[in-house]
Amino acid sequence: MAGCCSVLGAFLFEYDTPRIVLIRSRKVGLMNRAVQLFILAYVIGWVFVWEKGYQEVDSVVSSVTTKAKGVTVTNTSQLGFRIWDVADYVIPAQEESSLFIMTNIIVTMNQTQGFCPELPDKTSVCKSDSDCPAGSTNTHSSGVATGRCVPYNGTLKTCEVAAWCPVEDDSNVPKPAFLKAAENFTLLVKNNIWYPKFNFTKRNILPNITTTYLKSCIYNAATDPFCPIFRLGKIVENSGHSFQDMAVEGGIMGIQIKWDCNLDRAASFCLPRYSFRRLDTRDLDHNVSPGYNFRFAKYYNDLTGTERRTLIKAYGIRFDIIVFGKAGKFDIIPTMINIGSGLALFGVATVLCDVIVLYCMKKRYYYREKKYKYVEEYEQGINNEMDH
Amino acid sequence: MAGCCSVLGAFLFEYDTPRIVLIRSRKVGLMNRAVQLFILAYVIGWVFVWEKGYQEVDSVVSSVTTKAKGVTVTNTSQLGFRIWDVADYVIPAQEESSLFIMTNIIVTMNQTQGFCPELPDKTSVCKSDSDCPAGSTNTHSSGVATGRCVPYNGTLKTCEVAAWCPVEDDSNVPKPAFLKAAENFTLLVKNNIWYPKFNFTKRNILPNITTTYLKSCIYNAATDPFCPIFRLGKIVENSGHSFQDMAVEGGIMGIQIKWDCNLDRAASFCLPRYSFRRLDTRDLDHNVSPGYNFRFAKYYNDLTGTERRTLIKAYGIRFDIIVFGKAGKFDIIPTMINIGSGLALFGVATVLCDVIVLYCMKKRYYYREKKYKYVEEYEQGINNEMDH
Amino acid sequence: MAGCCSVLGAFLFEYDTPRIVLIRSRKVGLMNRAVQLFILAYVIGWVFVWEKGYQEVDSVVSSVTTKAKGVTVTNTSQLGFRIWDVADYVIPAQEESSLFIMTNIIVTMNQTQGFCPELPDKTSVCKSDSDCPAGSTNTHSSGVATGRCVPYNGTLKTCEVAAWCPVEDDSNVPKPAFLKAAENFTLLVKNNIWYPKFNFTKRNILPNITTTYLKSCIYNAATDPFCPIFRLGKIVENSGHSFQDMAVEGGIMGIQIKWDCNLDRAASFCLPRYSFRRLDTRDLDHNVSPGYNFRFAKYYNDLTGTERRTLIKAYGIRFDIIVFGKAGKFDIIPTMINIGSGLALFGVATVLCDVIVLYCMKKRYYYREKKYKYVEEYEQGINNEMDH
Repeated sequence: MAGCCSVLGAFLFEYDTPRIVLIRSRKVGLMNRAVQLFILAYVIGWVFVWEKGYQEVDSVVSSVTTKAKGVTVTNTSQLGFRIWDVADYVIPAQEESSLFIMTNIIVTMNQTQGFCPELPDKTSVCKSDSDCPAGSTNTHSSGVATGRCVPYNGTLKTCEVAAWCPVEDDSNVPKPAFLKAAENFTLLVKNNIWYPKFNFTKRNILPNITTTYLKSCIYNAATDPFCPIFRLGKIVENSGHSFQDMAVEGGIMGIQIKWDCNLDRAASFCLPRYSFRRLDTRDLDHNVSPGYNFRFAKYYNDLTGTERRTLIKAYGIRFDIIVFGKAGKFDIIPTMINIGSGLALFGVATVLCDVIVLYCMKKRYYYREKKYKYVEEYEQGINNEMDH
Repeated sequence: MAGCCSVLGAFLFEYDTPRIVLIRSRKVGLMNRAVQLFILAYVIGWVFVWEKGYQEVDSVVSSVTTKAKGVTVTNTSQLGFRIWDVADYVIPAQEESSLFIMTNIIVTMNQTQGFCPELPDKTSVCKSDSDCPAGSTNTHSSGVATGRCVPYNGTLKTCEVAAWCPVEDDSNVPKPAFLKAAENFTLLVKNNIWYPKFNFTKRNILPNITTTYLKSCIYNAATDPFCPIFRLGKIVENSGHSFQDMAVEGGIMGIQIKWDCNLDRAASFCLPRYSFRRLDTRDLDHNVSPGYNFRFAKYYNDLTGTERRTLIKAYGIRFDIIVFGKAGKFDIIPTMINIGSGLALFGVATVLCDVIVLYCMKKRYYYREKKYKYVEEYEQGINNEMDH
Repeated sequence: MAGCCSVLGAFLFEYDTPRIVLIRSRKVGLMNRAVQLFILAYVIGWVFVWEKGYQEVDSVVSSVTTKAKGVTVTNTSQLGFRIWDVADYVIPAQEESSLFIMTNIIVTMNQTQGFCPELPDKTSVCKSDSDCPAGSTNTHSSGVATGRCVPYNGTLKTCEVAAWCPVEDDSNVPKPAFLKAAENFTLLVKNNIWYPKFNFTKRNILPNITTTYLKSCIYNAATDPFCPIFRLGKIVENSGHSFQDMAVEGGIMGIQIKWDCNLDRAASFCLPRYSFRRLDTRDLDHNVSPGYNFRFAKYYNDLTGTERRTLIKAYGIRFDIIVFGKAGKFDIIPTMINIGSGLALFGVATVLCDVIVLYCMKKRYYYREKKYKYVEEYEQGINNEMDH
């Protein structure tokens, strides 16, 4: 018991620290201090000032709503004089963080369930019924083959299909785009962000924005960087593309909102930064399935009670709102960790200088003698021990 | 060759360890042990117990489906007696991790393409045709101006527009909300999660929930924390807002599901935690474009074949289901890394004590003499060498 | 001033390095080198080669578009002979990174607002009007009770409700699935990825894929791993489930695209990997609300101007496209950090060997004497100082 106590006492009241050789040498000293200075500069400059190693960080949680505005008028032989407003060109009417604006359209009106000749292509052109196996269908067919070969127009015969008739002919995409005026439509983006760790929330309609300003402003990176209303043409232009080109076959535009916030500063410095990027960039050398389009139909019953539909192949631009960012705030834990690992790096300075002093310098044997104490194994060499 | 072997032999059979000064001092010894104890407590307490540094972590991958239930009846002069069910008030019918419930509505029935007077506002009120430039349109107009100034009602004249006529008048939002009974609708949220690293999956309908219970339960943080069926009114109330207020102009509610799982324990301890937050919190001091609404239309052809539509401006609450969480499981790699960096921190204890012993204590010169061995540069001072 | 300069000079031209005991012992030396070799192998093998610690990493940002193709024909007594194409079975027509394919259907045609008997269940079956409190409604009712008890069929009476009449009867789900031919439909997934830190973008339609190949290929893990066109049946099959089973009650399939890229190698090595997983796996032991379905309606006016609708309860498979992955590229900062902490780990080797040498070996007292220099506190013991 007493022995145990004395061991414990010895343990508690003991302090061990390495023994150090202090070499007074201009060359080695300066080199050592230079390496230490470099490490200190790295730790303070990079870890603390640049990377803000003293902060805890959190990723953004966000919710987005969008609203498009704008009307335009078209006048074609097929559809006549026609006004297009939001309820016509936004499909579907609401999405979570995305908005589709229809810019081009192929309409097939008054389709009914029935039998009609397939569009002519490699597989559907036929000479006789034997070219059309009944019931066959492939990836690009509009319906199921009935097995008959019927005239498509004056000279051409194609296989008959059971389908919504007449079948859609989408071989010619209108150019310029049908709703080319969509360039002037505007898009209001409302974005609320939340940093859960810091319970910090902010919206992209800043507190100092007035209702009057919001009713008239349009985003401009230089003059109105915080106006949340965007002209569609400007968005596409800012990403380095042409709206009129993109409108023909459609595409995907990313509206990126970056919220990088240093919460050690006032909340008013935490501001959204907008940028725009085309997300469906295509390789220039080949042109496989470009753009963005989809089909939908409006169904109705005619006077005789037959179900009819208007099939619409809608080309357009989908605007995906992508919100990202990080917030940082001072916290004791990461500060301590980074100070600790910074101190550990100082060991590297000693290792580096040791290598130079003990292996590269002329006087290396002299210094080695000072640093090392050679101890042979007990049996062989207790007398060979050298201590300097 | 022989020399090379002997160098290799020397290298292999050598072991170098720092020489240590062991100072027997109550003050310094106790201080040293206290600092080491603090670091040990930090490493074990914080890194291992609190932050679970011995675990590998993975973020959740989730899929969500939702289903609303509830019917209500309204009786207004415009729409008459009318029943509203799921197919009427959920728009669109399915979304990925979000559900919109319509709570308020402005209906404009029987619109056709035509010419009619614009709604009166600052820019549309006119005295004569010269006030209405033909073809002009702005962000808030319902159509394209024809250039005529026509009577809007008894005394007021506004510019005529080509538009879907009659134009929508959304100046008065119904209050209380049209579908105020939506407060009692229920929402079933089905959520499947997956931790890819651990190949662990779970759903929020827990294995011990019976079909009977699921048919009758309603989520309640205190009594039914694992029932995945929510009363809409309760969701809004839990977030500290009033459903009836929110229903008028719409808004966004976040349903947050947190899955924080310690997979070193049994799977049955891995449970979902629900919380609710309003995502479109508005600044109280100003009121720019509040709430959430969008427009959509139902199209049909009338008896004469003219295309007509019913335009609906739908106000409502969008429920965004946000799933987050982390799972941890013991792994040798992070354990080793954390033990290693914990050991490295012990060096900090020595540095701290050294500073005190060598610079602050009265007997500092005595201790310095013990710790350091001063070596002058070869040329100047081989004889000045002092070794204690 | 002069004193200050000399202190600064002393500080600058000084170099301190620990004094080392070099023990020449086969046992300890070999052990020491073995531990060091193990740590070196760990640092190089695990940190650098396996975990690629010399790289900076970035997470993927992605945009997805999908397009389904395929037609099928059904022939039932209720709907007659009918063709189904994309515009019929994809609901809604476009979504952000998800696509719903309807595979089964319960149609309730020609509903109007009116009064009709509720479906019989526990709460709706009645004997007299007193069983049906007027105005009552519950989670599973189709409408609001009028307070009357009316005949449902020959023998059964149920409460009358104000509802869209006739009410939907979804007690029998068609089996096999109505659109069972959806197994052969195809899905084209277009995916563009972006690594913001490295400004690296790529699409899943690889540069070497020709238009001809794309028109005919079908994804197959073995033979066509980079064809972005998937047969629906194959997707479900690859995840280990049966398409025909899943089609009846619906479900959620995840199409996972993994982009793990080492950007130190050529961009052509950065390739997408597809995998498939059912996201709504249900527990086998109980069967609470399985599958995936939702309701929507098509509205129209009949000849008399009454609003009618066709209510559709759509069962189907939702395909969620989940894109994930990390890209790494050489960067000096993480390289330095990992080299630094690798060096720090070498300290662990010394600590381990010290423990063995000083506490476990027979000759421990001899070695301790060599390593330690015992210093008593000034007052008590300047003469007891022992230096070896």
